[in-house]
Amino acid sequence: MEIQYIFELFGTVVFAISGALAGDERQKHDWFGIACFAFITAVGGGTLRDLFLNSYPLVWINDMNVIYAVFAGILLAGLFFKYFSRLRITLMLFDTLGIALFTIVGLEKAHSLGANDFISVMMGMMTAVMGGMLRDVLMNRTPTIFVQEIYATACIVGGVAYLVFDNFGLDRNINFIVSGAIIAAIRIVTVKYNLSLPKFY
Amino acid sequence: MEIQYIFELFGTVVFAISGALAGDERQKHDWFGIACFAFITAVGGGTLRDLFLNSYPLVWINDMNVIYAVFAGILLAGLFFKYFSRLRITLMLFDTLGIALFTIVGLEKAHSLGANDFISVMMGMMTAVMGGMLRDVLMNRTPTIFVQEIYATACIVGGVAYLVFDNFGLDRNINFIVSGAIIAAIRIVTVKYNLSLPKFY
Amino acid sequence: MEIQYIFELFGTVVFAISGALAGDERQKHDWFGIACFAFITAVGGGTLRDLFLNSYPLVWINDMNVIYAVFAGILLAGLFFKYFSRLRITLMLFDTLGIALFTIVGLEKAHSLGANDFISVMMGMMTAVMGGMLRDVLMNRTPTIFVQEIYATACIVGGVAYLVFDNFGLDRNINFIVSGAIIAAIRIVTVKYNLSLPKFY
Repeated sequence: MEIQYIFELFGTVVFAISGALAGDERQKHDWFGIACFAFITAVGGGTLRDLFLNSYPLVWINDMNVIYAVFAGILLAGLFFKYFSRLRITLMLFDTLGIALFTIVGLEKAHSLGANDFISVMMGMMTAVMGGMLRDVLMNRTPTIFVQEIYATACIVGGVAYLVFDNFGLDRNINFIVSGAIIAAIRIVTVKYNLSLPKFY
Repeated sequence: MEIQYIFELFGTVVFAISGALAGDERQKHDWFGIACFAFITAVGGGTLRDLFLNSYPLVWINDMNVIYAVFAGILLAGLFFKYFSRLRITLMLFDTLGIALFTIVGLEKAHSLGANDFISVMMGMMTAVMGGMLRDVLMNRTPTIFVQEIYATACIVGGVAYLVFDNFGLDRNINFIVSGAIIAAIRIVTVKYNLSLPKFY
Repeated sequence: MEIQYIFELFGTVVFAISGALAGDERQKHDWFGIACFAFITAVGGGTLRDLFLNSYPLVWINDMNVIYAVFAGILLAGLFFKYFSRLRITLMLFDTLGIALFTIVGLEKAHSLGANDFISVMMGMMTAVMGGMLRDVLMNRTPTIFVQEIYATACIVGGVAYLVFDNFGLDRNINFIVSGAIIAAIRIVTVKYNLSLPKFY
C-alpha cells in the first residue's frame, strides 16, 4: 500500500508539472491560472472517478499531501521551466509515467469499490486522461485525446493486461509495475513511430 | 416498467449514433474519440441528473446493457455512416426521438426521487439535452442548444404537459407516449418551418 | 443566519444579471440560452462546491427561492439591459458584490461541513468564481479568470482574512462584512489601477 501511495503522489507531482507547462503556449497566464491548470490536470481525473463512483471524501479534500504534491509540481515547473520546455521528450516521458501510474491506481480503486471489470478499466483510463482533458476544455482547446496519437488506448490496453495478470494470480505489486510498463511502452513506441488509431470515417 | 426500460435503451442507441456522427465535421477523430463522443452524448445528461440528485449507482455503472446500447450505436454509425450522413432528416428524427424519450424518463426519475414539479421538468430537459451539450463543449464548439432553433424548449413544454396530464389522472404509459409525441411534434414543426425563440436583446 | 440567507439570495440575483448580460457580445442567444447562462453563473459555483463536499440536496434543488432569485435576475437584465450595458462600471460593482458575498458564504459552508482551513478558502473562492468559469466554457470562451486581472486572488485573500479574524474571535456577522469588504476593495482597486498578478513565464 505504501508503495502505491508514493506512486500516486509522484504521479500527482508529474501531472502538476505537465499542467503548469501546458499554459505556456498562449503566454498570457498569471500564477493563479497556472496553479489552476496544474491542479486540474493532477486531480481532475481522480475527482471525476470519485464523483461517478460516489466515493467520498475526495482524495485532495481528505489528504493535504495531494495538495502539497500539486504545489511541488508548480514550483518545479516554475524553477526549471526553461529546462523542461527545451526537453519536450523529458516532458512526454513524465506525462507517460503519470498516465501509467494513474491508470492502475484508478482501476484498483474502482475495483475495490465494487465496479465490474469493464467499468474498472474505464475508470482507470479516466483517472489518467480526464484531468488533461478538463484542462484542455478550460483552455478552450480541443482536447488532444480526441485527435491525437494513441494515448487513452494505451491506458485501456494496460488496464486489461492488469486484470488478465491478476486473474492468473500475479502478485499485485509486480502486476502494478508490469501493467504500468505496458502502458508506458505502448505510448513511447507509438510516439516514436508516429502511430495512430484508424480514423472512424 | 419494461416498456420504459426498452425506451431508455433505445434512446441510448439513438443518442450514441447521433454522438458518433457529430464527430464527422472535423474529420480528424479516431475510433477512440468517436466512442467518447457517442458515450458522452448518450449518458452525459442522465449522469449529470443523477449527480445533481445524488442518485447512485449511476445507470451506466450499474447496468451493462446501457454500455452495450452505446456500442450498438457506434457500430450502427460506423456501418451505415454514408447512409446516415446523406439523410440528415433521418438523423434529426432519431435525435428527436431521443430527446422525447429521455425527457420523460428523466422527469419520472427525478419525480420518483422526490424532486418537485419545477425541478423534475428541468431534470427531464437536462437528461435530454445535456449529453449533446457536453459533447459540443468537448469538441470546442458553442453548444447548439444556446444558439439554435427550439430544442430544449420543446422538452420543457412536453415535460409540463406530462405533469398536467398526470394531474388529470391519465394512465402513465399513455401519458409517456402522448407527452413524448408533443416534444417530437414541436421539434419537427419548428425545424420544418424554421421557427425560433425570440432573441433576448 | 437570516442576514446571511438574504446575502446569498442577493448574490444569486446579482450573478444571474451578470450571466444574462454575458451573452450579449455574440448577439445570437435566445431567451433559453440567456436563462441557461444566468442560471449557470448564479448556481454553478455552489453546485460544484456541494458535489465536491458531498453536500446534498443541492441548494437550488431544495430551495425554490434560489430559482426565483435567478428569474428575478433574468427579468432585471431584460428590463434594464440598455441601462446596464451602458454602465459597465455598475455591472462590475454588482459582480464584485457577488464574489464578495459568495466567497464568505461558500467558505462558511465548507467549514461547517468539516473541511480544513485550506480547503474552506478554496471552496469559498470556487463558489464565487466557478459559475462564471463554467458559463465561459459553455460559451466557448477562454475563462477570464485564467487570463485577467486579480479576481480569484481577491477571493483567496478575503477568505484568509476571514479565518484570521475568526481566530481572533471577531463576531461572525461583522467578520462577514469586513472580509467581504476586503474582497471588494482589492477587486475595485486592482481594476481601477489596472493591476495584475505577475505572469508565470
